[in-house]
Amino acid sequence: MPHIRLLVFDFDGVFTDNTVVVTEDGGEAVRCWRGDGLGLTALRACGMEFLIISTETNKVVSARAQKLGLECLQGVADKGAALAVVMQQRGLSSAQVAYVGNDVNDLACLRTVGLPIIVQDAHPAVRTAAKWRTRAPGGRGAVREVCDTFAEILTNHARL
Amino acid sequence: MPHIRLLVFDFDGVFTDNTVVVTEDGGEAVRCWRGDGLGLTALRACGMEFLIISTETNKVVSARAQKLGLECLQGVADKGAALAVVMQQRGLSSAQVAYVGNDVNDLACLRTVGLPIIVQDAHPAVRTAAKWRTRAPGGRGAVREVCDTFAEILTNHARL
Amino acid sequence: MPHIRLLVFDFDGVFTDNTVVVTEDGGEAVRCWRGDGLGLTALRACGMEFLIISTETNKVVSARAQKLGLECLQGVADKGAALAVVMQQRGLSSAQVAYVGNDVNDLACLRTVGLPIIVQDAHPAVRTAAKWRTRAPGGRGAVREVCDTFAEILTNHARL
Amino acid sequence: MPHIRLLVFDFDGVFTDNTVVVTEDGGEAVRCWRGDGLGLTALRACGMEFLIISTETNKVVSARAQKLGLECLQGVADKGAALAVVMQQRGLSSAQVAYVGNDVNDLACLRTVGLPIIVQDAHPAVRTAAKWRTRAPGGRGAVREVCDTFAEILTNHARL
Repeated sequence: MPHIRLLVFDFDGVFTDNTVVVTEDGGEAVRCWRGDGLGLTALRACGMEFLIISTETNKVVSARAQKLGLECLQGVADKGAALAVVMQQRGLSSAQVAYVGNDVNDLACLRTVGLPIIVQDAHPAVRTAAKWRTRAPGGRGAVREVCDTFAEILTNHARL
Repeated sequence: MPHIRLLVFDFDGVFTDNTVVVTEDGGEAVRCWRGDGLGLTALRACGMEFLIISTETNKVVSARAQKLGLECLQGVADKGAALAVVMQQRGLSSAQVAYVGNDVNDLACLRTVGLPIIVQDAHPAVRTAAKWRTRAPGGRGAVREVCDTFAEILTNHARL
Repeated sequence: MPHIRLLVFDFDGVFTDNTVVVTEDGGEAVRCWRGDGLGLTALRACGMEFLIISTETNKVVSARAQKLGLECLQGVADKGAALAVVMQQRGLSSAQVAYVGNDVNDLACLRTVGLPIIVQDAHPAVRTAAKWRTRAPGGRGAVREVCDTFAEILTNHARL
Repeated sequence: MPHIRLLVFDFDGVFTDNTVVVTEDGGEAVRCWRGDGLGLTALRACGMEFLIISTETNKVVSARAQKLGLECLQGVADKGAALAVVMQQRGLSSAQVAYVGNDVNDLACLRTVGLPIIVQDAHPAVRTAAKWRTRAPGGRGAVREVCDTFAEILTNHARL
């Protein structure tokens, strides 16, 4: 795991509890986890890079990504192809990339990376594609758990 | 189940967790499930048609239906009668229609269709009217579960 | 129970799950249960009268009460005294009134009425004051459960 | 515990369930517990003083603090240092201060006070720093539980 350089996230169901609040004018809001920020900050200090790839183009994704200081690709119909391009551009092998997802539109990405991760409450159809299933559900600590685990391993690795 | 042509849904408690957020100006918002969209898209590709029938006229229903690309009947006092008209207009027998509901105002519709379905957390008074009770609760995967199941059956059927 | 003429409710924690959503401008929103409306409508048809008594003056209470067609007393510092006045004005004895509450500011009302009711997740300090504790939590079916139970008893009573 | 004069709270995860609702324009909303107000009012009547210390500067914190009548320090990068200054200014020893937190950015404060408290669903990394872990989770009764317990002890102490 110390060789992971880029940690890629799906948004809905990973940063959120996969619900969406719909208002009368069609506005949307999502429910995120405050604790994610602390985990991302600590892991960024270890040198990890982050990226969000989302199928939809949605202002709430931009808003949350900006708050957390995360780079974000939206409106991506083929997430697997988009991730492959990113990896090529950055000169990263699959062994250097981890991906966190929760549903069937994450399958291509999960199969592209060396460390495919799903959240506790991911859709059953993606379970066999993952090497690690977090204990925390999406939007309730899953991102934090991934960050904490990486940070602990990277810190112990650096001390050796 | 392959003979089902039209899948009809109640809105509150099926697409939502049956809660409603009320703001100070009387505005309402509901909580839906992001995963429903993927399921509906996949099942639509199998040729299934969808319809939402809702007792209330409510902008949040229109907003969510539009986002999901679903046809929607609102302000329907007698949902059973409305569904019967729809079936007659489209030339559908009860064996060709399924309905997903969660409360007593769905009883007429549940009794009209060949495949009456209720969500996990439906009101106890509708349980005997259903042939199938989803494992997922409303607004937390129930619509997705119904779509996934239909899509799997239709896909396997087509392969035979 | 057939002699109950007036059913009085606290608002927060009874019609809601006792949470409040706070926005950046200090606006508030509460989370209610869609199923409550069906129960209240059915019980009103049995001749029951309803009243909400709330300590705070809050627009969300007015908004929800108006939607449900319920009379509402707000900004009531001494809810027990306010309820006593209501009962005197309407010529109701304690045996003719039920009250549904969830916290210590409901104790006076619970002790004033003949049938004191608390929701499943009421504060432990009010448990001994209640004759009936609903199975459903506040904002997740408690009001509906009370209405359903009353309606069933009143309907069966009328048939005798 | 009767010697505790100042009760200090973290905000997110203590007054809230640690989730944040993000809207399309980047606005944020948090979910608080209605029952906290009754507990704080009762404990204030016993002579307790309160303070919220929050890492972020956020309007929702100000809004909720104002509603509850609580003093509030925001935008505090080093919460431990900020708390030490407050204690010195008020002439309070660590034995006279309690702190309620939920995450690693509360560790310095938890170690500064005589009575360190964490909420039920606090991050595992702070568990050993606490003398008391509430039964209620943050934003679902934790603040109320702390206030109730203090008020009961102070009341019984005064009666001796």
